[in-house]
Amino acid sequence: MKAPFTSLAGFRAVFDALPQPDAAALEAATVRNGQLTKPKGALGRLEGLAIWYAGWVGDGRPALERPQVAIFAGNHGIAARGVSAFPPEVTVQMVANYRAGGAAVNQLCKVAGASMTVTELDLDRPTLDFTQGPAMTEDELVAALAAGWEAVEDEADLLVVGEMGIGNTTAAAAIAAALFGGSAGEWTGRGSGVEGAALEGKTLVVAQGLERHAEALSDPVEVLRRLGGRELAAMAGAIARARVGRIPVILDGFICSAAAAVLHAIRPGALDHAVAGHVSAEGAHPAVLARLGKEPILELGMRLGEGTGAIVAINILRSAVACLSGMATFAEAGVAEG
Amino acid sequence: MKAPFTSLAGFRAVFDALPQPDAAALEAATVRNGQLTKPKGALGRLEGLAIWYAGWVGDGRPALERPQVAIFAGNHGIAARGVSAFPPEVTVQMVANYRAGGAAVNQLCKVAGASMTVTELDLDRPTLDFTQGPAMTEDELVAALAAGWEAVEDEADLLVVGEMGIGNTTAAAAIAAALFGGSAGEWTGRGSGVEGAALEGKTLVVAQGLERHAEALSDPVEVLRRLGGRELAAMAGAIARARVGRIPVILDGFICSAAAAVLHAIRPGALDHAVAGHVSAEGAHPAVLARLGKEPILELGMRLGEGTGAIVAINILRSAVACLSGMATFAEAGVAEG
Repeated sequence: MKAPFTSLAGFRAVFDALPQPDAAALEAATVRNGQLTKPKGALGRLEGLAIWYAGWVGDGRPALERPQVAIFAGNHGIAARGVSAFPPEVTVQMVANYRAGGAAVNQLCKVAGASMTVTELDLDRPTLDFTQGPAMTEDELVAALAAGWEAVEDEADLLVVGEMGIGNTTAAAAIAAALFGGSAGEWTGRGSGVEGAALEGKTLVVAQGLERHAEALSDPVEVLRRLGGRELAAMAGAIARARVGRIPVILDGFICSAAAAVLHAIRPGALDHAVAGHVSAEGAHPAVLARLGKEPILELGMRLGEGTGAIVAINILRSAVACLSGMATFAEAGVAEG
Repeated sequence: MKAPFTSLAGFRAVFDALPQPDAAALEAATVRNGQLTKPKGALGRLEGLAIWYAGWVGDGRPALERPQVAIFAGNHGIAARGVSAFPPEVTVQMVANYRAGGAAVNQLCKVAGASMTVTELDLDRPTLDFTQGPAMTEDELVAALAAGWEAVEDEADLLVVGEMGIGNTTAAAAIAAALFGGSAGEWTGRGSGVEGAALEGKTLVVAQGLERHAEALSDPVEVLRRLGGRELAAMAGAIARARVGRIPVILDGFICSAAAAVLHAIRPGALDHAVAGHVSAEGAHPAVLARLGKEPILELGMRLGEGTGAIVAINILRSAVACLSGMATFAEAGVAEG
C-alpha cells in the first residue's frame, strides 16, 4: 500500500485515528476458547495470544497463513566511531547473504513458513554521525518511514520486522534513552559483542548524541530523526502500516523494540496490535519491554537481530491459533465437562 | 522395536550399558556453529540445543524430519477418590477425541510437522487404588513398559511422549514425593483444576500412598509399580527406548517429568538425551525439573498434558537445527568476521 503521507506532519496524522480490534471477533474467540476440550486455562499464554490475534484480524476462528518477515538494512555514520564489533561493510555483505539464503533469518523463515522481503535503504549513503548533527533530514526520515510502510504486503496476516545495520544498537540505545530517560549507560549494551573500552566508547557516543540533541528530545519523531537510522525508521513505518491494516505484529529484540517505542511515545496504545516475541540478551531489552508493557513470549538468550527472535515465536502464535480454531468443543466431541 | 525385556530384571539391565552421544558429531557441530554468519553466541540457547541434537543423532550437520508424538492413555484406581476435576470416563472420551482429530495435541502436531500415535493401555482395567496396595503387578508394569518401548517408531529422529489419564497428576505427585523426598503437599498440585477441599483430599491420597508403600520406595522401579500407572510406565519405557536408539527426547510437563525421573533415579545420566520442552503451571513442575537438572525451553503457563508443551517446543528445536545445518559460514558468504 502506498504510504498515505509525504511529510512528517502527514505521518503524525496517522496516529489521530488508529483502528481498534474487532469487538465481535474478540467476543466470539473468547466464548469459543471456553468451550474447547481442555481444562479451562490449560493452554496458558496460548489462549490469550489466540484471542488477541482473532481480534486484530477480525475473525473469531482465524487462520494464520501468510506471515511476512520484512527486513530493513541501513548504514550508520556512527559506525565509523568504532561502536560495533564488526566493520560497516558487513551490512551490505549480510544483505547479500540474505539474498543468497545463507543467514539465520533464511533458515528461520523456512521453519516458520514465512515469506521474507529485504529492503536496502541507501546503503551507500550512511546517516550522519548523530554526535555531529541530526542523523537524517526530514525528507530522509519521511522516505525511510514510507519505505517501511510500503514494504508490508497487503495480504500479510502477521508481520515481523527485522533489521541489519552495523552500529544500530548504538542508535537504538540513544532512542531508548531519549524516550525513557536515564543515563546512556543504562541503555547501551554489548550489541554484536563490544566489551571493555569499546563498550565505554559506545556509551560515550550515545551520551554525546543525547547531549547534542537535548533540546529536541521531547518529540518522539524528532528522536527518531536525530538519533535513529533508516532501518529503524522503516521498522517504525512498517509497524504503523500494520496497525492501520489491523495486521498483528510480533516484535523482535532491542532494536525493533526501540523503533516500536517511538510509536508508543507518539500515541500510547499504538502498539496494541503487537506482542513481544522474545526478550533478548541485550542488557536493556527487558527495560524497554517493561516500558512498553509487553511480556515476551520467549526467553532464549538470543541477540542476533534480523527479526530472528520474533520469527522463532511465529510458530508459537501459529500453535495458539491452530488450537483456538481447530479444536473440538466439549459438545462436539462428547467429552464430559469438569 | 520389540522390547528387549520380559521381566523387571530385564528392564533394569537396559541401564547397565546406555549409549552416549557421538563425540565426532558433537565436535563437528561445535566447530561449524563457530563459523556461521552471526556474532558468536548470538543464537543463544538455540546453539546449544542444535549441538546437543547433533551429538545424539550422530550427525554434525543434522536434519530434523521425523518427530514422533507418542500419546499413552491409562486409567487409575485413585480416580474414584475424587482427585480430579473431571470424571474417569473422560480418559476414553479424550482418546476418541484424539482419534477424531479434535484435541489440542492434534492441532499442535500439525503445526510441529509431527506424526502422532495413540496407545490405549487397558482402559477398561484401571490400576489398583495405590492407597490399598501396589497400583500394578510386576507383569502389568512390564507390559506397560514394553508397550511404551514398542510404540516408538524406529525411524523417529525426535520423540515427545504425552499422556491422558484422569487421576494421573496424583500418581505423578506420589512418584515425585517418593523419589525426591518431602511431604505430599510439596508435590501435589491443581492438576486439571482441583481446589480447596478437593485439593486437600488429593494431597491426603498422595500421603496415604506414600505411607502405605514406605518400605519399598528406595527402589525407583518399585515406586513406579506401586504409585504409578500404565501410561506413566509406558512413557518411561518409551524414553528408555529412545535412549537406546539415541533418539533425542523433548520432555513435556509434570506427569512426563515424573515418569522420566524414574529413569534418572535408576541411573543418573539416563536422561542426557532429553531436554525439558517447557515448565508447566503445575506447582511442583519447576522442582522436578531442578532435580533433573533440566532448564525448560518454554514458559507459557501451560498445564494441559497430552505432550502439548513439548510439542510446541519442537519447532524451537527445529529452528535451532535449521540454523546449524543451513546457515552459510563467514568464508562461504564472504562476510567479514568481527
